[in-house]
Amino acid sequence: MQKGALEGLRVLDLSRVLAGPFCSMMLADMGAEVIKIEQPGSGDDSRQFAPMKNGESSYYMNLNRNKKGITLNLKGKGRDIFLEMVKQADIVLENYRPGTMEKLGLGYEELKTVNPRIIYGAISGFGHTGRNKMRPGYDIIAQATGGLMSTTGWPGGEPTRSGTAMGDVLAGLSLAIGLLAAVNHQTRTGQGQKVDIALVDSVVASMEIINQIYLVEGRLPERIGNRYESCYPYDSFAAKDGWLVIGAANDKLWHLVCKVIGREDLIQNSRYKTNPDRVKNHAEIKPLVEDWTKQYPAEEVINAMLAAGVPAAPINTIDQIVNDPHIAQDREMFVDIEHPLAGKTTLTGSHLKFSVTQTGVRTAAPLLGEHNTDIYQALLGYTPEVLSELKESGVI
Amino acid sequence: MQKGALEGLRVLDLSRVLAGPFCSMMLADMGAEVIKIEQPGSGDDSRQFAPMKNGESSYYMNLNRNKKGITLNLKGKGRDIFLEMVKQADIVLENYRPGTMEKLGLGYEELKTVNPRIIYGAISGFGHTGRNKMRPGYDIIAQATGGLMSTTGWPGGEPTRSGTAMGDVLAGLSLAIGLLAAVNHQTRTGQGQKVDIALVDSVVASMEIINQIYLVEGRLPERIGNRYESCYPYDSFAAKDGWLVIGAANDKLWHLVCKVIGREDLIQNSRYKTNPDRVKNHAEIKPLVEDWTKQYPAEEVINAMLAAGVPAAPINTIDQIVNDPHIAQDREMFVDIEHPLAGKTTLTGSHLKFSVTQTGVRTAAPLLGEHNTDIYQALLGYTPEVLSELKESGVI
Repeated sequence: MQKGALEGLRVLDLSRVLAGPFCSMMLADMGAEVIKIEQPGSGDDSRQFAPMKNGESSYYMNLNRNKKGITLNLKGKGRDIFLEMVKQADIVLENYRPGTMEKLGLGYEELKTVNPRIIYGAISGFGHTGRNKMRPGYDIIAQATGGLMSTTGWPGGEPTRSGTAMGDVLAGLSLAIGLLAAVNHQTRTGQGQKVDIALVDSVVASMEIINQIYLVEGRLPERIGNRYESCYPYDSFAAKDGWLVIGAANDKLWHLVCKVIGREDLIQNSRYKTNPDRVKNHAEIKPLVEDWTKQYPAEEVINAMLAAGVPAAPINTIDQIVNDPHIAQDREMFVDIEHPLAGKTTLTGSHLKFSVTQTGVRTAAPLLGEHNTDIYQALLGYTPEVLSELKESGVI
Repeated sequence: MQKGALEGLRVLDLSRVLAGPFCSMMLADMGAEVIKIEQPGSGDDSRQFAPMKNGESSYYMNLNRNKKGITLNLKGKGRDIFLEMVKQADIVLENYRPGTMEKLGLGYEELKTVNPRIIYGAISGFGHTGRNKMRPGYDIIAQATGGLMSTTGWPGGEPTRSGTAMGDVLAGLSLAIGLLAAVNHQTRTGQGQKVDIALVDSVVASMEIINQIYLVEGRLPERIGNRYESCYPYDSFAAKDGWLVIGAANDKLWHLVCKVIGREDLIQNSRYKTNPDRVKNHAEIKPLVEDWTKQYPAEEVINAMLAAGVPAAPINTIDQIVNDPHIAQDREMFVDIEHPLAGKTTLTGSHLKFSVTQTGVRTAAPLLGEHNTDIYQALLGYTPEVLSELKESGVI
């Protein structure tokens, strides 16, 4: 059996809750040795977050699978212990407010003195530089500040938050990219560095073409429901029993749509000739398409469109996704793991698929301090006696 | 001046429009030599996409900065030329429908025979495996299929598409992670491989905690507007002149909110004691907070909350973001570049910030075939005569 693509990489993970743990989850899924370091006694806040299974947080279990878990109080003696581990690590990862690590005497400058090869990854709301860096940044703050909310939703309606913590997810993905690029540089030069990812920047970068509309045309991108600025019909449409989406992104697909809905006469209509024409006259086209789609259940409409070569899809609810054989089975996007307390638990699988190296869910998320003995013995050579002392004095 | 973290990495980029080019944009921003290969005559479809500046697409210019551009018809003689370049590359990147590269005789298995170290990255709608792999997959198809639309929006309202092409963005970020992990494996072992990213999988992975709600509780996550399943008040609130967001994710922050709005009596109210209490009774809390926030302009409310230590932010429109000094200047998220035809153009900067290696926008996106002479001469030693012949016969 092949190992993971990140086999041999050791990550000390101080991050909590979502954005940081989402990043280190991907690193662990790809085979890195991720050592999650939690506060003795309490651990990551997300251990208390619903949904719970047999008293164990499924929020935590999903984001922290494949990681090893140890406890360490970073203040006092714990600081020295952490620095000893940094000497033997490739990456340190945290998502505290900027300055917190410096207050602990564990900022990048300090870590660099004990290990110049160390790669230091930080996620914060507004970044580690700039006038607003100290502003607190949760996901909703980033979705609002970065433009995602003001452009999501319906004409005349309120700005709308994404249905998932998208700011956190984007930052977690982005830090993984930054860390792996830094690993490439470190492998070639021996030099470590700091990677500084902001939730807000990550959202701003995700707005790409939407930013360009304002920058080039001076036009303010607004909430336009489910349609897209660049092409039409590329939108949701009402069926007899709900909605579905159609993505007819070019002239050829528009002609196919016209044939499926029995309106080949529209192909020659000069008001709908090109994509810019159709975007301009989208309000006329939607009811023309819906006159047909509303007569049939969504599934029949989708099948007819797909048979004709038109991209179309159901607007899946989560139960449909979890039970979709292509997504759940073929693509292994939902996988079971046995957890010592929660029992058999289904997690979201890795979406990173490699032909040679292994990814996926191998081990359940750690209990609090589960790997204290293993890790402290293997990395620092602590005897059971030393470990007992550290535990009694609250260091671990 | 330090070089980029991916200096020395050569990428042959066959991808078009958004998801693939977004991935290779990040690689180029971090210093990789990205050679974008376009169809002679027409080029990437997105060269025609609005918004346009002096006839040049700003959509294209943003996603393809820092890349070199050559033309090549992959059929016939062009196939051999491409294979010659593969011998000298680290990464090949494409976002065709599965099977397209095989039809061209350029599938991963073929490329591997000329260069076993090659890393092959593919983005498709549903992935390169599984029963639905041949389904066409645009961004809206993935947002609908993966659950983002059914969970974004308002109670009683329609499923809602994200204001940006989030499925494409998530897949582009994910492919960058997969490719860089594969580079790590290649550097250590000499072995290349294929990385297979699906838009749908990428959206499913982004739904993390939302999936868990159904998997553990059997409860179907619904559209709940701007609030969050895990804490309250963490939502948008109406001000005198618009809306703002507040992220009070724990008891301490809730107490601070109560103080700011002059309702310290609520701190002791058992209906609002813990986060689960507040999530349960969110419909009561929202008007209590809005009784205060509606009296003042959003900016005053935000300043009062921030002064008290409560995370709060404006719901920025794109013009506000582009002109925000922290985002635009301090974090360099909007940067100017001189384009030979479009003139001075503002692009979205890189959100990947490194302390040592360089990132950012160095060169404008290529004109069609701009680097034909440079690249074909440097990589393959073609003389001006050979280049003329290839051009005349439509190969380049």
